[in-house]
Amino acid sequence: MSDVSEAVHLLEGSSRIREFLRQVLRFQPVPLHSVARSTSLTVPVASALRRELEKRKLLSRKGGIVLTEHGLSLLESIGVRETQIPGLQSGYPFPEWLNPVVEKLDILLSSRPGPDFSLDQSHADTATIAMRAAYLYEHDGIEGKDLLFLGDDDLTSLATITFAKKFGLQLGSVVVLDVDERILEFVEETCVSIGCDIQTHCLDLKYGIPEQLKNSFDTFVTDPPYTVTGLSLFVGRGIEALKPGVGGQCFLSYGSKNPSDSVKIYASITSMGLAIQEVIPEFNSYVGAQIYAGVSNMIRCVTSEGTSALIPEDLSTLYTSSRKQR
Amino acid sequence: MSDVSEAVHLLEGSSRIREFLRQVLRFQPVPLHSVARSTSLTVPVASALRRELEKRKLLSRKGGIVLTEHGLSLLESIGVRETQIPGLQSGYPFPEWLNPVVEKLDILLSSRPGPDFSLDQSHADTATIAMRAAYLYEHDGIEGKDLLFLGDDDLTSLATITFAKKFGLQLGSVVVLDVDERILEFVEETCVSIGCDIQTHCLDLKYGIPEQLKNSFDTFVTDPPYTVTGLSLFVGRGIEALKPGVGGQCFLSYGSKNPSDSVKIYASITSMGLAIQEVIPEFNSYVGAQIYAGVSNMIRCVTSEGTSALIPEDLSTLYTSSRKQR
Repeated sequence: MSDVSEAVHLLEGSSRIREFLRQVLRFQPVPLHSVARSTSLTVPVASALRRELEKRKLLSRKGGIVLTEHGLSLLESIGVRETQIPGLQSGYPFPEWLNPVVEKLDILLSSRPGPDFSLDQSHADTATIAMRAAYLYEHDGIEGKDLLFLGDDDLTSLATITFAKKFGLQLGSVVVLDVDERILEFVEETCVSIGCDIQTHCLDLKYGIPEQLKNSFDTFVTDPPYTVTGLSLFVGRGIEALKPGVGGQCFLSYGSKNPSDSVKIYASITSMGLAIQEVIPEFNSYVGAQIYAGVSNMIRCVTSEGTSALIPEDLSTLYTSSRKQR
Repeated sequence: MSDVSEAVHLLEGSSRIREFLRQVLRFQPVPLHSVARSTSLTVPVASALRRELEKRKLLSRKGGIVLTEHGLSLLESIGVRETQIPGLQSGYPFPEWLNPVVEKLDILLSSRPGPDFSLDQSHADTATIAMRAAYLYEHDGIEGKDLLFLGDDDLTSLATITFAKKFGLQLGSVVVLDVDERILEFVEETCVSIGCDIQTHCLDLKYGIPEQLKNSFDTFVTDPPYTVTGLSLFVGRGIEALKPGVGGQCFLSYGSKNPSDSVKIYASITSMGLAIQEVIPEFNSYVGAQIYAGVSNMIRCVTSEGTSALIPEDLSTLYTSSRKQR
């Protein structure tokens, strides 16, 4: 399979191709986006891979992707056969009782500003941001807590406020930072309309955060740009904003990367002294986002005694668009 | 709360005490082991914490731990009130269809050797090892794969073989390494009785693994000793045993540590170039184990292009017993 792997420049290696074929076997006929999702490939890469596997007569299409006889016998030769084993349930299934929050958000956010792709914006859907709020509550990130949203085109701040209001939870101070003025205006207007307090600051995290916001928060929530530099910058600023001491919380949404980039990401997180508590694949779903098969991980961390921000020196490749230009 | 934190030498800081009280509020009256589990505290630490909080008249006992009036108003003063929000489902719930595997294992393992605590052995229960096998299958760690079990007092190898047999899966070679001859004998005898192939090697990982086992496996499974050194040694040897290339698999069970030790653990994992794919709290339950509230995380990783073993130089503090002696 290594020729296929080279043909699609697949950093994940041939094991990912095996997984791809195995997912088709388990769930055929299966739509492309579903295999992309379950193998953590982006839709364009999954599509290129399907094309190569079709060329080699391993796959064909019949109401979705299916294996050919040739594909079936290739899998059998490496030990993979059809079974009756059901898929395991995993992650955090969406609970019925959250539906009223989602309905409320669908109304509130109907006139939200569109995504600015140059800033790697792509909206998490309303079910996702409602689940983020429920997940924050589950892990004690809401009640009486001073909360910072670092970049919030997803509008998780509004989901959290809506959730808190619905269930009578008391929030500490809530602050939203973003470089996009449109988002901040929308957040402010919405908060006025529902009668809630929020503070917003328009700034570029490259240039630091204002002194009065440093050492001020119990919890930060972020879904940074899709680059290692972007992740390090956003997490570093988040750490600067947290109150000193052990147990400060970081709720970080981040797409699956190839193994080498994943190592860099987790190395960056641990080098700043954040302790990983949980990593949930496919927690976040995005509206129309193709780049990460429309899903990303939730990574929950807490601060340790040795937590301290490390801001990358070269910030020129913050967004994927800047990376492509180079 | 920082005086309580000091009184019980709680490295987790006062935020963990807040969580403790909040868990009592949500689920009172609640048994100690249940709060210990949900706050990732060991039972002895949770017990010491309860004592301190009782002394301060914040908690009392009434068919389990309950809050006093004083405790309720303390929580209210920091924003935490009683709500009707249900707990979120999370992790991998045990599926009905796995029950026959568990029943078979309960029979097979009824005469297993008892745990040797000097080696940090404590048995994962049979539901846990059956779930490990199902989780391996879910993430393509079984079919046609060459599998290494690095230390196996849990007998996950037998669970995997039983699972594979039950569902007609074809395994590659299966090898078990352990320093405890009793375990290897039991594994061998059981495999003879059910007519399955397995290889065992008795060795101390301190002294390396045999040349013929290096670069030989697709997947390794381990539940190392509860020290950072133990984790690094076992994971390092696992990496040496994996075939070169991207996408080799590591299924690692590891207890929750305080934030500083957690940072060290994940720093060790990433320094060896393993890419974290998923971290599931409370995946593993242990029979009678008190040290980690009877539960531990499942950490799933894959190899990257830069994966390479780093074996700690000082191996004198491999087991918690050796640590205590110093």
